[in-house]
Parts: sequence; structure tokens; C-alpha cells
Amino acid sequence: MKQDLKIVKIGGNIINNEENLRSFLKNFSQINSPKILVHGGGNLATKMAKELGLQPKMVGGRRITDQANLEVVTMVYAGLLNKNIVANLQNNHCNAIGLTGADANTIVAHKRMVKDIDYGFAGDVDKVDAKSIQLFLENGITPVFCAITHNKNGQLLNTNADTIAAEIAKSLGNFYKVELVYCFEKNGVLKSMEDENSVIENIDSTSYQQLKENNTIAEGMLPKMKNCFEALDAGVDSVVIGNPTVITNKDQKFTTLKL
Amino acid sequence: MKQDLKIVKIGGNIINNEENLRSFLKNFSQINSPKILVHGGGNLATKMAKELGLQPKMVGGRRITDQANLEVVTMVYAGLLNKNIVANLQNNHCNAIGLTGADANTIVAHKRMVKDIDYGFAGDVDKVDAKSIQLFLENGITPVFCAITHNKNGQLLNTNADTIAAEIAKSLGNFYKVELVYCFEKNGVLKSMEDENSVIENIDSTSYQQLKENNTIAEGMLPKMKNCFEALDAGVDSVVIGNPTVITNKDQKFTTLKL
Repeated sequence: MKQDLKIVKIGGNIINNEENLRSFLKNFSQINSPKILVHGGGNLATKMAKELGLQPKMVGGRRITDQANLEVVTMVYAGLLNKNIVANLQNNHCNAIGLTGADANTIVAHKRMVKDIDYGFAGDVDKVDAKSIQLFLENGITPVFCAITHNKNGQLLNTNADTIAAEIAKSLGNFYKVELVYCFEKNGVLKSMEDENSVIENIDSTSYQQLKENNTIAEGMLPKMKNCFEALDAGVDSVVIGNPTVITNKDQKFTTLKL
Repeated sequence: MKQDLKIVKIGGNIINNEENLRSFLKNFSQINSPKILVHGGGNLATKMAKELGLQPKMVGGRRITDQANLEVVTMVYAGLLNKNIVANLQNNHCNAIGLTGADANTIVAHKRMVKDIDYGFAGDVDKVDAKSIQLFLENGITPVFCAITHNKNGQLLNTNADTIAAEIAKSLGNFYKVELVYCFEKNGVLKSMEDENSVIENIDSTSYQQLKENNTIAEGMLPKMKNCFEALDAGVDSVVIGNPTVITNKDQKFTTLKL
């Protein structure tokens, strides 16, 4: 039987608030199985870019990463955020290691092709090296990934953290029983955006099609759900979507996706 | 017989110049034995601190690290510099991993005690975890350390890169035949500072005492040499001091320290 592996992705709602982050990392440390953390950048990179006199450019919620902004996200994501998270986890007796995709060549990506929009140094993932991630896990080391990858030719690339989490999950599905957990600001996928309690507790491939057709799942949730079902198709056991406490407390509503 | 291990420390003269750095990393990648790189920060942290409106404070060549400056060195050393070095090494087919002392709990330090001067978040090394560094080396992964450690209680600490290199060398001396290489702007320890060719090629404990007594070794070189001989005393096989090309080209003058 495969060993459990929990892969948890956190975003701005946790990263932007010191108290939320501290409390989340304490809970995360208490997960007993092997685990991996993937973190987004929150609003700190935008703040830092402004302080340095740069104009952050966003199109459709995605950052346009020119050379100067790539330097900022490398500093903020891989330096300030990632290393403070690692030091905090060490304090919680979780033997963490902070990684970009360049470290131990864990995630290779390519610069996104220019079609309508030139996203600059934005990376689309080609390959996750499951073997080096397993080396860490098997030695009791918890990988903490930030949203930076590389192209194996010396170029760092800014890469969507949701995608990184899904790609890591897919690469490890052959070796572990993987639960991929997306923590965000809501309690799960909601029937009605206005009602926080309207959590859809279970979604499978059939109900997913229905929820798309009747527009319950739309806009920002669409790419997220697409990532999730691709991960399930590739051998990930289950995907959980919920608020940050879902990683240790299951006495609440959250959404579970299974094929 | 112990396997060879080369530990190389580079400082500002390489870090501050993109062309020097690229050429050094190409040479470093060609070292056949297991190897570790330790890099200082150069002047980029000072530049970044100024851009962010901070006043960098130095006393006797050492940085006073308040909270704001700690954030800057964490961004610049562990983020921008470390990750670009790692990506560059990957391009040179060297499977590098970028580390602070917090990562995999490799280097634990304590905040320097306040005597005459409060250095702020400056760390003095307590313990290097040889076991986790060996895990990387034995799996063909090359650790790249920046000058940041942690205190195991969630606090990152700015730590002298020369010292980090020496402490890592000391911790691994039991398991490897360690050559510790300090690359700097001169060709080695010089008899006369004005004459770049006056390299003292060999120094042992006896000649070291003489060189101190007759003031050939003085000022900035004194703490560096003290680190070196402490490393030799602790089981490091040899220490080399020379210009950056010394790591692959031994057809030139450089200084070798042995007990």
C-alpha cells in the first residue's frame, strides 16, 4: 500500500497576515504523514516593487514579469517569504527545506510563449523531478516550494503556485497516495458565492460537468478546477479545497474532489 | 581512504561582477570531486538597502543588522544571489541546491551577545549538521550556502560567510579529506601588499607565528587566518587562499596552509 503524502498550497490570505501564517504553520507542522508546502507570494512583491519605483503590471490577475520584476519576486518569494517560513517550521520541529524549481533541478519550466500577451519571465512547467523530492521526503525533510522555477539554461521563471502544487502532486502520484489541498479564503467550492455555508462537499467528474454547465463553477474557479481534475486524472488520489484550518481539522465543511 | 571534498568560499570581488561570477561558476562546475560553494553578499545588499531608504550601518567592516536590514539581506543573499547562482550552476550541469542554515536545519547559530557593540541580528555559529549536508553530497547534489543562518527558534541571522565556510569544513573533516578554498582579490597571502607576485606559497603553524610576529599578517587577514588554522586544527586537510581561478588552475602561485 502506498504511503500518504499531503501537498498543501497556501496563497495571499495566509501569506499577507503574520498571525494567520504563524497559526497555519503550527497546524501544518502537526501533519504526521510526509508533506510538502507550496506558497504563493501574497501582496508583498507588489509592495516591494512599488517601494523600488517599479510599476507592477497585471493582466487578468496574472503578473507581467519583466527583468526588474523578476528580481523582485525572486527576492521576495525565494528569499524573504520562503526562508522565514522555513525558519518558522524549524521552530515547530518540522525539518523544512526551502526550494525553487532550480534547487536540485526539482522543477523545469519554459518561458511562456507570446500569443496575445507577453507575460515576460513567466514559466509553464515541463517536468517535476519526483526522484529528488522523494529523497527529501524519505529522509524526513519537508520541501517548501515558492513560485519560482527555472528553464535549465540559467533563467529563473515566475510560475503560478497553484500549477506548481498540481504538477508536484501529479509527479508523485505513482509513489504516494497523494492528497492535494488548496487552502484559500472560502470554506470550499460554494453553491452560492454569497453563502459561506453553501459548501459543495463532494465533486466528481460527472457533477463537475454539471456545475460548469449551470455556471456554479465559473471565472477564477475554472482554471483552479481544471488543474485539480488534471491532477486526479494523472493519479492523485483526492483534492481538497477549503479554508486553512482544513489541513488538521476535518470537523467542518470543505470540498473534496475525486474522479 | 577518505573521499576528496572541496569547499569554496567566494566574496564581493566575484559576486559584484556578472562576468567574473559567470566565469567562476563555469570553473566551479568542472570540479570533479564532491563540492560545496559558500558565497558572501557583495555590495548588492547595501545598494538595495539604500534604494529602500535604509541607512546601512557598518562597524569595523561588519554590518549592523537591524530588522529592516535583515529583511534586505535575506532577500538579496538567500533570494536574488543564491537562486541566480543555483540556476547558473544547473545550466553548467552542476546539480546545485541553494541553502540558508535554516534549510534542513544545516546551520544553527545564536544572536551575537552585546558587549561593546550591538550587531543586531548577527549570528555566531553553534552547530553544522554534517549529516544532512552529506545526504546532498552522497546524492550528487552540490550545496550552495549564502550567509544566513537561524537560531532554531524561528529567527534568521546574518552570518559571516568566511566563518560559515570554515564551520562547514570543520564539521565534514571527519568524513572527507577537505580542502577549504578562500577565493579573494589577491593571488594569496602576500609578503608585501604592494607586490602581487610576493605570494607566500606555504604556511604552517610555525611560520604562521613568525608571520604574525613580524606583522606580515595583520589587520583584515588576522581573523581570516585564525579561522583557517582553527579549521586545520579541527581536521580539515588543507586551506588554500588565492584568486578565483585557483579552483581549477594550479599553474599559478597561491597560498596553501597546512598544520
